[in-house]
Amino acid sequence: MAPKEKGPLLNHNGRPYHALIAEQFDRPLLDRIVDTATKMRKIGKTRGGMKFLQDLLSEKRAMLYFAQPSTRTFLSFYAACQILGIQPAEVRDARTSSEVKGESQEDSVRTFSSYFDLIIMRHPQGGFAERIAWMLSGTDRPVPVINAGSGKDQHPTQALLDIYSLQRSLEIRRGGLEGAKIAFVGDLLRGRTVRSLSLLLRHYPGVKQYFVAPEQLQIGSDILEKLDAAGMEYEVTSDFEKVLPELDAVYMTRIQDEWDQAGESGAVDITKFYLRAEHLSVLKEKAIILHPLPRRHEIAPEVDADPRAKYWRQVRNGMWVRATLILMIFERDHEINSYYEDLMS
Amino acid sequence: MAPKEKGPLLNHNGRPYHALIAEQFDRPLLDRIVDTATKMRKIGKTRGGMKFLQDLLSEKRAMLYFAQPSTRTFLSFYAACQILGIQPAEVRDARTSSEVKGESQEDSVRTFSSYFDLIIMRHPQGGFAERIAWMLSGTDRPVPVINAGSGKDQHPTQALLDIYSLQRSLEIRRGGLEGAKIAFVGDLLRGRTVRSLSLLLRHYPGVKQYFVAPEQLQIGSDILEKLDAAGMEYEVTSDFEKVLPELDAVYMTRIQDEWDQAGESGAVDITKFYLRAEHLSVLKEKAIILHPLPRRHEIAPEVDADPRAKYWRQVRNGMWVRATLILMIFERDHEINSYYEDLMS
Amino acid sequence: MAPKEKGPLLNHNGRPYHALIAEQFDRPLLDRIVDTATKMRKIGKTRGGMKFLQDLLSEKRAMLYFAQPSTRTFLSFYAACQILGIQPAEVRDARTSSEVKGESQEDSVRTFSSYFDLIIMRHPQGGFAERIAWMLSGTDRPVPVINAGSGKDQHPTQALLDIYSLQRSLEIRRGGLEGAKIAFVGDLLRGRTVRSLSLLLRHYPGVKQYFVAPEQLQIGSDILEKLDAAGMEYEVTSDFEKVLPELDAVYMTRIQDEWDQAGESGAVDITKFYLRAEHLSVLKEKAIILHPLPRRHEIAPEVDADPRAKYWRQVRNGMWVRATLILMIFERDHEINSYYEDLMS
Repeated sequence: MAPKEKGPLLNHNGRPYHALIAEQFDRPLLDRIVDTATKMRKIGKTRGGMKFLQDLLSEKRAMLYFAQPSTRTFLSFYAACQILGIQPAEVRDARTSSEVKGESQEDSVRTFSSYFDLIIMRHPQGGFAERIAWMLSGTDRPVPVINAGSGKDQHPTQALLDIYSLQRSLEIRRGGLEGAKIAFVGDLLRGRTVRSLSLLLRHYPGVKQYFVAPEQLQIGSDILEKLDAAGMEYEVTSDFEKVLPELDAVYMTRIQDEWDQAGESGAVDITKFYLRAEHLSVLKEKAIILHPLPRRHEIAPEVDADPRAKYWRQVRNGMWVRATLILMIFERDHEINSYYEDLMS
Repeated sequence: MAPKEKGPLLNHNGRPYHALIAEQFDRPLLDRIVDTATKMRKIGKTRGGMKFLQDLLSEKRAMLYFAQPSTRTFLSFYAACQILGIQPAEVRDARTSSEVKGESQEDSVRTFSSYFDLIIMRHPQGGFAERIAWMLSGTDRPVPVINAGSGKDQHPTQALLDIYSLQRSLEIRRGGLEGAKIAFVGDLLRGRTVRSLSLLLRHYPGVKQYFVAPEQLQIGSDILEKLDAAGMEYEVTSDFEKVLPELDAVYMTRIQDEWDQAGESGAVDITKFYLRAEHLSVLKEKAIILHPLPRRHEIAPEVDADPRAKYWRQVRNGMWVRATLILMIFERDHEINSYYEDLMS
Repeated sequence: MAPKEKGPLLNHNGRPYHALIAEQFDRPLLDRIVDTATKMRKIGKTRGGMKFLQDLLSEKRAMLYFAQPSTRTFLSFYAACQILGIQPAEVRDARTSSEVKGESQEDSVRTFSSYFDLIIMRHPQGGFAERIAWMLSGTDRPVPVINAGSGKDQHPTQALLDIYSLQRSLEIRRGGLEGAKIAFVGDLLRGRTVRSLSLLLRHYPGVKQYFVAPEQLQIGSDILEKLDAAGMEYEVTSDFEKVLPELDAVYMTRIQDEWDQAGESGAVDITKFYLRAEHLSVLKEKAIILHPLPRRHEIAPEVDADPRAKYWRQVRNGMWVRATLILMIFERDHEINSYYEDLMS
């Protein structure tokens, strides 16, 4: 079970050991996550089901180390732990930390690994979660690490919940994600969400991706090269209204101006990349609208009441997908299958 | 059960759906809260009783959203959740929140409603909890909202615990709250506690209220009008020492100078509204002294040891009353009655 | 059981009532802590064992009041509570507290005692935990207080975990702590850890202590006087390399420059008190290296991989020792013995 032998990403049963980058999830793993999360959601609808879930990992403790502000992702993981009976602890504010006494970040995290069975971390520095996972692999407490967002690059569990939301909604509407036309709209340069999700979509044949953004904030060429290599179809455009009627899913994003270095965002007329009430009439009846949230003005309030708006369901899906991932890391996901079968029989 | 049909304050079983304003509690509801809280306190005295309580709502998760600093109320609700087995999560510091990314407050709270089954919130803005409760009513997760203090106006659970403390202490001493003489002393203009409690006392026939404050900080005329309309007796005065010997209960409050706009508080000689050691000799032997806390200098330390000082018991009562309210919201309070009957038989 | 009759440090069964100062622990109590912590650690290795532990104090709630930043000690206590099923709550940031409303510290803590069954506190002020323990003794909720570090003087649970780490490691290597040669290295003037530990070592006959520090940061003469009075052997020196080959245990510490009043630390060449890679060859093969952490540069990274480096195990020991202490305070430690015997039989 030592990650040193297997690499840090999969354990000997083919389940994730750590969850560090979106690319570590292949199609069978994605399908298993979608399937288990759906079953868990259904189990969680009754009091007895919730009690069953809360017993699954009640002997575990998790550290949520969020060195970067994030209410949504933090609470989503927090609730996911609670659903599974895992007792959470948190370090959300660097100022209360031993770092003020000059401790290295590695030592801080190694302390967490001494007390807790799982580390869920968000960090402003790219690659930080991976560095920590490798560091822990060399110790006698190589606890699993889940990357809850690091730098501009990776936010793998957001990508997983997006896959789940796309897959579930499009299954009902058009039989699945394969062959769907999906647009990413807004700040694609710095939104790590879209970058991760775009690469995961390579596992779904026939998907066409539209990258709809002002030139200055377009998707990185590294992503496009990977899509090319995988033979995926895509379109890069700044004409939102032109592509809108073709879409099965619109994935809206906000301007990430906290990453601005020289006021890039200010020079751009981002309002052309807003989803407004009048757009609803040109959008397909069976299309869905997603947004990783938080939003500012990218989606008009009138859109919220439209049945195609799925971003609040997407938020809640995140909790179930994260609970699923944690359960898989601890290799207890098969118990969901057994309970679900009993429930259905 | 949808709050849209019934209004947001009562559910179909006559229990509170949300807890937003003191005025939503009528006498039967108050009596039920007092009765259940007392039983719960007694059940909680044994290990077995605590385990019974902790099982009642163990499948629930609560969000404590405190956008305004408050240790006492926060911890009181936190402990109340723990007593009932509810798993709490918290957002206490606006700086860690998505609001820094430009999200609306409504979206922030709607996120909480996606992950949690109950929202307990304190907010500096008057009417905020009500606005949120109505907003959630229009969504597919209309989770209950408890107002833990909003603006200068409402702090309904403080009023409930005050009613409980008055009722319990005066029951033993003089057979109940009806007909009691109760003085509110200090900053009555801005202390939301007194405003809410004063209105709730309309449900107790024969109570006479004394508003003892410097002119600049006297109780609002809106409250007096409502007391008039209900035919309640009251006296507005700045002579603390004169009324002191008549009282069954003295409710002390502190100067709320965090609401000062132009140094109002500084111009007032508030020391005339302090309860000093020498006052104890003129106070009735069976009177009680309450204070919502925190206190500064309104009550001399020598008073603490006097058997009439009930403010620390009042603090602990708050925890039990809040647990009772939460249990009623989830319609599980009848289980307290069954367990209590078994215990007594 | 009231602490007033017995003094606040021991209850009627000879177990600690509060845990305030290292000196309150005598040898029988230390031996019992070491024994129980070892059994608890072993019980905690299985899922069933963890569930047994989590049931022990599941009806209790603890307040962790940390008025001074400390991630390590905080999380250690937090995890210790979780292991025992105690539900923790925290106040870690003075700014969110009622203190901003002018409340006294005594009133703040008395509020905690109203809601919780145990108070674990860290405070910058020396003697604060003791003052609070005595204050609570006079109230009708005299809940136990654990000192998690106060001022420059006391950090008793750190001393307990150090005793545990020394005792366990030296037992295997040389049959126990008695007669061992132990050096304290670094800032001995202000490191409260060393002061407490040094005094506890008086209970272990034959131990020789070396105080290795620059003159300006040497151990206080009050400690040396107490060692003299107990007839303990010690050496005060600034020559680290000379004593190194003699040692059974090296206890490294960092410069506590947060206590600097006039830049004392800057004037000292502290690098002479670093443990460097080349020192490993002169250190006995069976010696152990400890550090209370956080560290800065006192221990070279190359040392981490050496089997004599025990500071990460020491961190984890802290969690088990704290859980043991809490269990003893609530007089439930005998259940560890029963469970352990069943396990072994």
